[in-house]
Amino acid sequence: MMGIQHVVVGIDIGGTNTVFGFVDRNGHILGEGSIITSSFGKIEEFVSVLYEKITEVRKNLICEVDILGFGIGAPMGNINKGTIEYPADLPWKGIIPLAEIFKTHTNLPVFVTNDANAAAVGEMIYGGARDMKDFVVITLGTGLGSGFVINGKLVYGHDGFAGEIGHTVIRPGSSNRDCGCGRKGCLETYVSATGIKRTVMKILADKLEPSELRKYSFDELDAKKIFEAAKRGDPIAIQAFEHTGEMLGFKLADVVAHTNPEAIFLFGGLALAKELIFEPTREHMEKNLLSIYKGKVKLLPSELSTQNAAVLGASSLIWSNREG
Amino acid sequence: MMGIQHVVVGIDIGGTNTVFGFVDRNGHILGEGSIITSSFGKIEEFVSVLYEKITEVRKNLICEVDILGFGIGAPMGNINKGTIEYPADLPWKGIIPLAEIFKTHTNLPVFVTNDANAAAVGEMIYGGARDMKDFVVITLGTGLGSGFVINGKLVYGHDGFAGEIGHTVIRPGSSNRDCGCGRKGCLETYVSATGIKRTVMKILADKLEPSELRKYSFDELDAKKIFEAAKRGDPIAIQAFEHTGEMLGFKLADVVAHTNPEAIFLFGGLALAKELIFEPTREHMEKNLLSIYKGKVKLLPSELSTQNAAVLGASSLIWSNREG
Repeated sequence: MMGIQHVVVGIDIGGTNTVFGFVDRNGHILGEGSIITSSFGKIEEFVSVLYEKITEVRKNLICEVDILGFGIGAPMGNINKGTIEYPADLPWKGIIPLAEIFKTHTNLPVFVTNDANAAAVGEMIYGGARDMKDFVVITLGTGLGSGFVINGKLVYGHDGFAGEIGHTVIRPGSSNRDCGCGRKGCLETYVSATGIKRTVMKILADKLEPSELRKYSFDELDAKKIFEAAKRGDPIAIQAFEHTGEMLGFKLADVVAHTNPEAIFLFGGLALAKELIFEPTREHMEKNLLSIYKGKVKLLPSELSTQNAAVLGASSLIWSNREG
Repeated sequence: MMGIQHVVVGIDIGGTNTVFGFVDRNGHILGEGSIITSSFGKIEEFVSVLYEKITEVRKNLICEVDILGFGIGAPMGNINKGTIEYPADLPWKGIIPLAEIFKTHTNLPVFVTNDANAAAVGEMIYGGARDMKDFVVITLGTGLGSGFVINGKLVYGHDGFAGEIGHTVIRPGSSNRDCGCGRKGCLETYVSATGIKRTVMKILADKLEPSELRKYSFDELDAKKIFEAAKRGDPIAIQAFEHTGEMLGFKLADVVAHTNPEAIFLFGGLALAKELIFEPTREHMEKNLLSIYKGKVKLLPSELSTQNAAVLGASSLIWSNREG
């Protein structure tokens, strides 16, 4: 008999699946489940079924749990308002009052934020930033997200949308890469799974070196294939990682000049390429840093396990709020 | 008989003069004084004479005061450590433990920070940010400084050097303007009193339009002459302000994507040019903002009186610390 465990429920809403887990203070997941996001045209119906499924999984846990709250990570989640605002990849449109709808099922605290903010708090609660007060997490997925922690607290911003550095402009000028946000030259058009793919296509166009990547169409190519090729020594793939790290390192030097963090964590797919991405990023960050910052800012891999990171990150909002 | 007033002493250490004032909670200066910074080769001697002068001015105030602490603004002031670190324009070299030396004269709190951070706290305590929790102050002087307030607190940064956005790179590339920091293309090489002068020189070189500014040498030209010419309709001077505002607005859109402030305040010489600088800055900031931020971030002039701003800003550190 284990007695009653205090847990929080972490929920990660993705375009295809919504995954949840019961998480204890040490980041152990006692049980988990999922539903298909895209099956639900109505948000109310989605939340009802999700809540039911959570209740069902709870019954089958190996110990009794006391749920302290629900932390939800979702694209365009607004932590100030508990809403999801105009998410591109979800079935619901406009401003969705997610926390409010969730609260028709429970009186417990419900927090909503985006994936990158959740990753930042997760790093502080369970990961490599446990002893840090000032750090930044960069999430490298399809796009580039970021979460800032300052004085031990997640920075929300006045409108709940702090940390969109994927949409700072790395290269001004109209001949630049189109970004999904409608602007040009944003950091994430270069530094993300999609960005490195675009970079490979550009290098393939410019250079004559042989490369196994020449056999893939734009649609077929992905970051994983580029990583595998780079590990096998493919010169084009290696140049693509170098170029990506150069762009990221250059921009991180600017980020440091804003809030002077102790560390910057890289999280997500591209970060798994380890030194292929860390080495050029570190080199170009140091090269571009103002002298007072040189040698002081750590560039580190996230310590959240990638498999459960989104659920862990979402769950951490509740612990952080109780302890902060 | 006015009774005992609670005051703090604000001290502004500049390359030439050091100015101080006794400031009440409403930002009224009850008395002030100054000494010549450059007369003192030894920092200990400087602090002794300064403290003596403060004591002397105190005796002549029209009412009795209870001093709550000393707030000091200085170039390269480090708020975490109470030091001044490698200041370029002061007579003392290396890392100067200013708060520690000051504390040999008093047991009261002593805070040290740089001018831009002091301006940010001053705006929150006495100025236009009295009801704000998340804002940025940009100081436009010889260079460009910045101070970030998040969740109602000044952002120090892990090493005490947050807010150096004057040294973020606006234009990458080696053909860019040299910056005093040893790098190229920094924001302050374009947006500052010195930056607009360099811009005028560039436009004079590129264009054929007549301009009263053609009669000045680089050494003779300054921001005030450019401002006066622009007010008289000089086309080159007006273009220089437009270009400066374009560069600043472009960069402020990036700043917003970091911490999502409620407002950005412009402070200092160039900001006095009012709509000549605000109008193009606002236009280009809005144009470059990610859509979720558009129309939401206020661009405002500082409400600190320029004449006493440095002393007010320095003094505000003490009130902020007592109340925060």
